[in-house]
Amino acid sequence: MLMVLVLGLSVLALAVAWGLRGYVLRQDNGTADMRKISDAIQEGAEAFLRRQYRTIGTLSIALGVVIYVLYAFFRKPHADEPAAATLALTTTLSFVFGALCSGVAGIVGMYVAVRSNIRTASAARTSLNKALQIALRGGAVSGLFVVAMSLFGVGLLYTILEALHFEPTKIPLMIVGYGFGASFVALFAQLGGGIYTKAADVGADLVGKVEAGIPEDDPRNPAVIADLVGDNVGDCAGRGADLFESTAAENIGAMILGSGLALANPGVFSPTQVVGLMLFPLVARAFGLVASIIGVLVVKAREDEDPMHALNRGYMWTALLAAAGFVGGTYWLLNPPGFAAAWWHFALCGVIGIATSIAFVYITQYYTEYRYRPVKSIAAASVTGPATNIIAGFAVALECTALPTVTISAAIIASYKLGASSGLAHAGLFGTAVATMGMLGTAAYILAMDTFGPITDNAGGIIEMSHQPEDIRKRTDRLDAVGNTTKALTKGYAIGSAALAAFLLFSAYLDEVAALGSPLASVDISKPEVFVGGLLGAMLVFWFSALAISAVTKAAVSVIQEVRRQFQADPGILKGTSRPDYGRAVDIVTVGALKAMVAPGLLAVGMPIAVGLVFKVFFHVGAETVASFLMVGTIAGILMATLLNNGGGAWDNAKKFIETGEYGGKGSPTHKAAVVGDTVGDPFKDTAGPSLHVLIKLLSTVTLVLAPLFV
Amino acid sequence: MLMVLVLGLSVLALAVAWGLRGYVLRQDNGTADMRKISDAIQEGAEAFLRRQYRTIGTLSIALGVVIYVLYAFFRKPHADEPAAATLALTTTLSFVFGALCSGVAGIVGMYVAVRSNIRTASAARTSLNKALQIALRGGAVSGLFVVAMSLFGVGLLYTILEALHFEPTKIPLMIVGYGFGASFVALFAQLGGGIYTKAADVGADLVGKVEAGIPEDDPRNPAVIADLVGDNVGDCAGRGADLFESTAAENIGAMILGSGLALANPGVFSPTQVVGLMLFPLVARAFGLVASIIGVLVVKAREDEDPMHALNRGYMWTALLAAAGFVGGTYWLLNPPGFAAAWWHFALCGVIGIATSIAFVYITQYYTEYRYRPVKSIAAASVTGPATNIIAGFAVALECTALPTVTISAAIIASYKLGASSGLAHAGLFGTAVATMGMLGTAAYILAMDTFGPITDNAGGIIEMSHQPEDIRKRTDRLDAVGNTTKALTKGYAIGSAALAAFLLFSAYLDEVAALGSPLASVDISKPEVFVGGLLGAMLVFWFSALAISAVTKAAVSVIQEVRRQFQADPGILKGTSRPDYGRAVDIVTVGALKAMVAPGLLAVGMPIAVGLVFKVFFHVGAETVASFLMVGTIAGILMATLLNNGGGAWDNAKKFIETGEYGGKGSPTHKAAVVGDTVGDPFKDTAGPSLHVLIKLLSTVTLVLAPLFV
Repeated sequence: MLMVLVLGLSVLALAVAWGLRGYVLRQDNGTADMRKISDAIQEGAEAFLRRQYRTIGTLSIALGVVIYVLYAFFRKPHADEPAAATLALTTTLSFVFGALCSGVAGIVGMYVAVRSNIRTASAARTSLNKALQIALRGGAVSGLFVVAMSLFGVGLLYTILEALHFEPTKIPLMIVGYGFGASFVALFAQLGGGIYTKAADVGADLVGKVEAGIPEDDPRNPAVIADLVGDNVGDCAGRGADLFESTAAENIGAMILGSGLALANPGVFSPTQVVGLMLFPLVARAFGLVASIIGVLVVKAREDEDPMHALNRGYMWTALLAAAGFVGGTYWLLNPPGFAAAWWHFALCGVIGIATSIAFVYITQYYTEYRYRPVKSIAAASVTGPATNIIAGFAVALECTALPTVTISAAIIASYKLGASSGLAHAGLFGTAVATMGMLGTAAYILAMDTFGPITDNAGGIIEMSHQPEDIRKRTDRLDAVGNTTKALTKGYAIGSAALAAFLLFSAYLDEVAALGSPLASVDISKPEVFVGGLLGAMLVFWFSALAISAVTKAAVSVIQEVRRQFQADPGILKGTSRPDYGRAVDIVTVGALKAMVAPGLLAVGMPIAVGLVFKVFFHVGAETVASFLMVGTIAGILMATLLNNGGGAWDNAKKFIETGEYGGKGSPTHKAAVVGDTVGDPFKDTAGPSLHVLIKLLSTVTLVLAPLFV
Repeated sequence: MLMVLVLGLSVLALAVAWGLRGYVLRQDNGTADMRKISDAIQEGAEAFLRRQYRTIGTLSIALGVVIYVLYAFFRKPHADEPAAATLALTTTLSFVFGALCSGVAGIVGMYVAVRSNIRTASAARTSLNKALQIALRGGAVSGLFVVAMSLFGVGLLYTILEALHFEPTKIPLMIVGYGFGASFVALFAQLGGGIYTKAADVGADLVGKVEAGIPEDDPRNPAVIADLVGDNVGDCAGRGADLFESTAAENIGAMILGSGLALANPGVFSPTQVVGLMLFPLVARAFGLVASIIGVLVVKAREDEDPMHALNRGYMWTALLAAAGFVGGTYWLLNPPGFAAAWWHFALCGVIGIATSIAFVYITQYYTEYRYRPVKSIAAASVTGPATNIIAGFAVALECTALPTVTISAAIIASYKLGASSGLAHAGLFGTAVATMGMLGTAAYILAMDTFGPITDNAGGIIEMSHQPEDIRKRTDRLDAVGNTTKALTKGYAIGSAALAAFLLFSAYLDEVAALGSPLASVDISKPEVFVGGLLGAMLVFWFSALAISAVTKAAVSVIQEVRRQFQADPGILKGTSRPDYGRAVDIVTVGALKAMVAPGLLAVGMPIAVGLVFKVFFHVGAETVASFLMVGTIAGILMATLLNNGGGAWDNAKKFIETGEYGGKGSPTHKAAVVGDTVGDPFKDTAGPSLHVLIKLLSTVTLVLAPLFV
């Protein structure tokens, strides 16, 4: 019954997404001039995605084989568990299915996003509200598809295994592969997309703006289309895969905790109630989907209004409805007889999660918008040149880790304590899981706002390149500025939810280690091996970031060379008489980005395995060392990702602040200094930072699924 | 008997230091022109030190009162321990004594350093070797004084308490205040000095080089003397206090472990042998002092030789002699009958420590010298402007954390396993302690090389400002370049030894918690509170770095304003007809730096206390949360300090590489881009990075001494 509700609501969300897709595609798609640009973007984005998913698909199949062999031959199932062959099959198939669903969601989202840009641009010629709605609804296709597919996938796997008469409480641990598949795809999608977008951006800027002296988004620049493609593959496909993974891993992790909670409280829950407890995360997510649909549909902006206000109203509706769904859901499903306090304790945990997501939105705004002190301080420091701009920006980036950390700390502890005092035994961790569900409840809306970013950015590019009148350009500029904010917010949200989810994935790992027959009494970092595990985990974050940033530089070099080559080969390009070869530039970034993503990707997957094996073989403390590797690595990852994301956002907006006319405005030496900071921040906020979100979650899932290797 | 040896050798080292002081002061002190400059530096440095130590003294006395009250009224001594009143007295007095000894060592070192510069400059007029020897011996006064005072202080406290008939094995825990005093002074000395040096440097450069277009070290710049003073207060006084603290804390921590080892192996050691075991760290340090003296005295350079080779030869002599002393010392003192393997296991641990210090020297050179790939990559990236210079440099800074982390990890585990397999029970941690002793064995020589840095830098400045001929200038430039390398090496060494020492200070903290009656079974970061403790500990490192970097900016602003004011008030300054008011600039930096050091200093001391109290009062897990705060904070600190130190060094030398004529050489756009990186790196490598070394150790000592608050 419950599963019918979950699957039904996720199919409903998919249907709404499909409907929105139709709505967007029916809109006017501009002039022939505009279509030429938009077609080039579509072509480039789809070519990249095809090649990228082919690479990822190959890697996934190889890893699937490894997983199967590992589970079939090296993992002795616990007495309670299904036979080794069964477990190997379900884990491997769910891994492949997770990878597949993530891919499908990414492709559908992108398909619509790269078709929404021109419709947004076209609508901007008549009405701000219309353009805003098209961009948001285009983004919502991606947002709803990602979250609904992730939910549908888990629901379907559960339903199939239940139909095969596996015991419901055993099912979640059989499908952890789904989350691993999703995070494996997310790692490469985000790395590849992140490297692509910034290599194209930096490459286009350095030769175009700096060397040739032509403005941004100028059609004479051969890399301009690659740059516009990049926004889609980074922010839409990359972030989509990121949040697909978050919701998938969280769904499964929370189900595992739910079944654990039932076991820890024997006799409290009837068999039906046990299933309800375990499916609660899916139900809550389904309610969140409905809340997000309503939120997206109510957004409407007056012509003279700040479009951000309109988006914020939609977000508030979503958050309110999600909170209401939560309260109802906990009353319905987490309300065992004789424990009157339980449901409202858990409801409060959910509200804490929603409140955390709102807090993250505000903190990110404070550190990245130019209305506030931090960005203003960077702008002021730019007066004395690029060096002081960088120093001030880096100080802001370091500082901005403080409030999110305190927020996450408070959320973890408050929800843990609320859960623990619910009357049920061992319910603390479940409380934290409920808070994570709350935080992820609005994921579809957040992701819609995020994809709004590349759509409006592209719309701006299309308007610019097709030489539309000034007042239309102003309209798309306003939307583009809002898009920059929403992209920054999503990153803050993604890292916050990753941090909360991490804590519940730790416990899934510890449960798995216990299920393998050697439970850990503790993860004691006062032991030298365990301390060293933590040290190496934190180091991975630094090293991975180095590789991600270097990858951008490497890929950018090939773009720079290509653009220079085209300018030299045909002087007509710069005069505007010949059309540059956009396709070649797109190809070169594609190849460069896919090649450059291999090294950081391998490091991310390989290092936890290497650490686990070395410490198991030489010191017999593989599992505990890996646990500390995972936990301290997660801590370092949260901080470094926050630093990189918000630092990059702050530099970007310091430049934008100066462009409003402060400190001499555009073209002044102060502006030039701020452009340096903006360029530095680009690979921080769009490549390394977002890749770290995924790294954190990948660490959890890789250690969870490969735990048999370390024990 | 042993103590006579220890005190004797430390007095010998102090005497040699005094002798070297006499040697340096007897040298020719140049022309009147040169003396004018040197006098101004002396005056400025001493004025800063006076004010700084006055501030630190006041803070220390206040904290001393807090410690006394805490120990006298809130800490119930364990059955084995001396009465509360006694413990309160010894802890408080040793705290004050530690602060005092650190201060005396800092002042004496500085006194000689600011008088060695002019003598080095004067000698450079005739011979490279003579100049090199004077600079190194001047530096050795600081190096020997710091290490010998730290050893002498611990030895004296021990001797007094032993004379008062306290049981020897109880004494180390009674004098932990000594280490806390030392680290408290070190924090403010390094913060204040680091802020001073970079505020003066950045301020002088921005107005002088950028705005007025006059070269570096130009006497027309009113901040030029402040800049030269800064090198002394940062690298000499700051790093001296840093290593004073390392050796003091390590001495006491290792003594505690030694007495613990004796207790864990009842009947193995005779009472005399127990004392020998416990005093081994002091004996090893005393041997290291002798090795350093010999190392300093053998340094001699041929006129055509790279002075770095000469310094390296001296270092190799020191390392070899220290290793020999170690082997002898372990055979003599760590050789209980019936445990034939023990002594050579520990001797190997010592050798591991020495090897670690050599490894750190080479790794630091690899990442910061322009002969190697990393710095060359930054230089190459500067061709496309400051943004790519910064991106490439930041990638190198992130990457360079990998090898040091692996080295430290290997050293911790290898020495732990060697100790554990020595045949003695519970000797693993003592093995790590012995490795730390090995690493710190060459501390005096390393510190001599470090202080060599500001001395030769100042000598270069004096030669430049007194308009000496080109060939003399070249000689001091060569020495100055070597000084830059030795300063970078010392930072690598300081962070490496802090990382090793941290691990043994953790165990001292855990022992103290156990002594307070609530031993921790583990520091289990899978508990939510303990995980949050780790998260907050890592965040402290980021936030503290932000405050340290911002402090430089704040203090630099006041310098910039003052220099601009002087240029406007008297146009004769820029024409070279009037003398600028150097003193006023020095005063302004002094006041600015001392003001700016308060916020990060308070955060460093206050946050561990706040975390401990909050988690004790609300969640009753103060001690364990603080332990994880400390350990994860240390991990983050090691990584961030390495990033900041080596990143800064790499940017600096990328600029220097271009100045050798690569990529267009000095004055080219590429050089300008590299100057941006160099300026960004300045507060990284000279303020935030070094302050983090001290922060790490302060965390250990503050939690150790204030543990009664959290239990």
